[in-house]
Amino acid sequence: MAQQAVTPQSVDFSKWYNEIVYKADLCDQSPVRGCLIIKPYGYELWEAIKGGLDRRFKATGHQNAYFPLFIPESFLKREAEHVEGFSPELAVVTIAGGKELEEPLVVRPTSETIIMDSFKNWIQSYRDLPLLINQWANVVRWELRTRPFLRTTEFLWQEGHTAHATAEEAEAETMQMLEVYADFAVNDAAIPVIRGRKTDREKFAGAMHTYTIEAMMRDKKALQSGTSHNLGQNFAKAFDIKFLDQNNESQYPWTTSWGLSTRMVGAIVMTHGDDKGLRLPPKVAPIQVVIVPIFKTDDERSVVMETVDRLSKELSNAAIRVHVDRREGQSPGFKFNDWEMRGVPVRMEIGPKDVQNGSAALARRDMPGKEGKQFVPQAGIVAAVQDLLVDIQANLLKQAETLREENIHDVKRYDELKDVIEKGGWARGWWAGTGDDEGRIKEETGATIRCIPFAQPGGKGACLLTGKESAQVVLFAKAY
Amino acid sequence: MAQQAVTPQSVDFSKWYNEIVYKADLCDQSPVRGCLIIKPYGYELWEAIKGGLDRRFKATGHQNAYFPLFIPESFLKREAEHVEGFSPELAVVTIAGGKELEEPLVVRPTSETIIMDSFKNWIQSYRDLPLLINQWANVVRWELRTRPFLRTTEFLWQEGHTAHATAEEAEAETMQMLEVYADFAVNDAAIPVIRGRKTDREKFAGAMHTYTIEAMMRDKKALQSGTSHNLGQNFAKAFDIKFLDQNNESQYPWTTSWGLSTRMVGAIVMTHGDDKGLRLPPKVAPIQVVIVPIFKTDDERSVVMETVDRLSKELSNAAIRVHVDRREGQSPGFKFNDWEMRGVPVRMEIGPKDVQNGSAALARRDMPGKEGKQFVPQAGIVAAVQDLLVDIQANLLKQAETLREENIHDVKRYDELKDVIEKGGWARGWWAGTGDDEGRIKEETGATIRCIPFAQPGGKGACLLTGKESAQVVLFAKAY
Repeated sequence: MAQQAVTPQSVDFSKWYNEIVYKADLCDQSPVRGCLIIKPYGYELWEAIKGGLDRRFKATGHQNAYFPLFIPESFLKREAEHVEGFSPELAVVTIAGGKELEEPLVVRPTSETIIMDSFKNWIQSYRDLPLLINQWANVVRWELRTRPFLRTTEFLWQEGHTAHATAEEAEAETMQMLEVYADFAVNDAAIPVIRGRKTDREKFAGAMHTYTIEAMMRDKKALQSGTSHNLGQNFAKAFDIKFLDQNNESQYPWTTSWGLSTRMVGAIVMTHGDDKGLRLPPKVAPIQVVIVPIFKTDDERSVVMETVDRLSKELSNAAIRVHVDRREGQSPGFKFNDWEMRGVPVRMEIGPKDVQNGSAALARRDMPGKEGKQFVPQAGIVAAVQDLLVDIQANLLKQAETLREENIHDVKRYDELKDVIEKGGWARGWWAGTGDDEGRIKEETGATIRCIPFAQPGGKGACLLTGKESAQVVLFAKAY
Repeated sequence: MAQQAVTPQSVDFSKWYNEIVYKADLCDQSPVRGCLIIKPYGYELWEAIKGGLDRRFKATGHQNAYFPLFIPESFLKREAEHVEGFSPELAVVTIAGGKELEEPLVVRPTSETIIMDSFKNWIQSYRDLPLLINQWANVVRWELRTRPFLRTTEFLWQEGHTAHATAEEAEAETMQMLEVYADFAVNDAAIPVIRGRKTDREKFAGAMHTYTIEAMMRDKKALQSGTSHNLGQNFAKAFDIKFLDQNNESQYPWTTSWGLSTRMVGAIVMTHGDDKGLRLPPKVAPIQVVIVPIFKTDDERSVVMETVDRLSKELSNAAIRVHVDRREGQSPGFKFNDWEMRGVPVRMEIGPKDVQNGSAALARRDMPGKEGKQFVPQAGIVAAVQDLLVDIQANLLKQAETLREENIHDVKRYDELKDVIEKGGWARGWWAGTGDDEGRIKEETGATIRCIPFAQPGGKGACLLTGKESAQVVLFAKAY
């Protein structure tokens, strides 16, 4: 297990990312093109994400269910924009049980169509509404260029699908679920996000409109981290879903869908990681505290381990996720580097002197060197660690916020936008352009409109491209 | 929502099952042949099963990971018995991203091959062993005859995959995981199971040997409820996995795999259900207590609901899964039937008289009529309900045990076996026959050897078919 240096972020961020996800043991390459193996450490991180979201979904009245992996090809074709958006990316089963299938089966790229087919049976009356369903599942999109967690052929996600009696309720649901995502991102993953609406050009295939949370990575590129779609009556009409309202009149319901995927793992890596490795927010970290015992002789070992085991138990009883590094044949220095690479928020060192003094050394992953190190009494270790975890969680969020604030620039003209994008940053400006204008800017600068932020300055201004008067600012950035 | 009568178990058990899984809202039919939609109530039951197992897997040192859905066709072919066993059931992706694939991708029917390909990279030294991995996933086997939960084209399961330095450790792991399954079945699902070994004819394709837990359903047919395979060095050799042992010599590790699926939902239904619907063991029941408020006037409603809300909160605070049936326009009688159908262990009725008396009526799902009904003081309701849940859990297990004990018959000759199988029951007898003999008996009686039970009478006896002396008894039964 050689510990080679990582390419610094400043040299090549993309290379840094590709090295770090493997070195931190989050994932492994697979023999299947574009597919990823999620290793135990990465999967535990995903389980923490799942847990945080699932709790919030249930608290807002949603129930989990499971629908088939396979979708009859004809289903996808029912919603015109939807099939156009997804057909280039489909994986198709044509042979099953040794025979060619009469109708090919698509491996789900998303489940609107197969779920709407059920909603048609489940919804008869206004009493059946709202219908609030979520699914945890794997989906497949045959991507040409893939990157670990950020874009993989198969990925894990959740997809919510709901139906409502009125347009207003559907809109409220779409907004509520975006807020759930934002709440998770900010409070659990320590990722400050900007809430906004996608332009028509960037919205989900088949949606009336799409809301998004956008996060700034450490290279100042944007990562779309979760989306919530108001599907209007598009899918209800395509699948002929109708209900009798309170006046006994037949109506199409209004539906929504919203999804967040293993991409969030990539977002956490690129928001917080540094040249030494991951820096995981305590709330989602698989291991919150790692204890590294330090000793030379067998005698020392036995006194040190006694203390280590006792403290480990105390922390564990307080529901702190603690791990003792019992590996033999590895130096403390090797272990320090290894746990820094894996981004464990707090490292506790216990040596013979600490035993003697009744103290423990605590080192913060978010503060390098002496500044982040302190000696605390073993008595009261639980409270000390809990406080430290709260502090680290807040500090990671603050650092990310600062980076973001420093790198969003207001621009008035297209050349200013080009300049900001070229130097690395997000450009915010008044916008009244068309979808074609967006396309041209993407071609010329690589940047897209990430969203029309909910937080607007108010008033009006001249469009940075066309000079036309506009009532909204948008955010341009290069994105993953 | 009409409440039609269910076909009684005594008339047609199979029909009863097929009706009940839909009426109890566990699942729905899907438009994809052989695939099932798991509805929220069924999925919550599966989540309880997952929770009970995952906790046990982690307590025995296993970690979750995730491997690709797709397996290159060539991988499956590396282990000869394995491919022979699975190839008739495969679903194959031949087209992806609009193009024909050079090598078709099989949708995983089980993941030994794709996981062993990773193990080859992860295992270099004895220090990397044991490697203890579990995966929660969907798998696909193209079955000709399908039944909800029992046999579906796509199903959800967990599959454990481990590698060990010695044959002894692999055997101990195989046994340990069978014990984990048995512990879950008996203590959480209230399903008494018989632990045993499969004959060579019935073992997993590619295994050295397979252990199983077998349960008796209420129609006296057997259901294989979980299996644990000792794969010997078969897969290690097929995938060229080697490690350096402590003497620095190159060795093949010994591997195991073990799986339990959504079939367990079917096992719970068929072990406990009766003509009124499901009867769910409290430990896995999505709802443990349902409260049905009873009132006629608005005044009554407001006093009743005040008490209902208070008691519901008390139970919920004590981590009891409670649901208040607030539906309007449905009679209490309708609601009682509905919750009986869904198998909720305890029904609490609160009417104006109960409010006045400070009491609550509790009805047990496992005891019909007056016998199962009691009035308890509202003070101390939590303890009363907790005791009741423990009692119901034990009673369901006991009833299932009694049924099983009464329907396992010792047989000495083949005609006795035929008789037992024909009347409905399991036949236990000395056995020294061949795989071909098993095939003949299956053809003539429909029964297979479910297992060679670990619990053996000792001594020797004459084989029920061949008369040859044998040291082991086996269990014959018709099975799902």
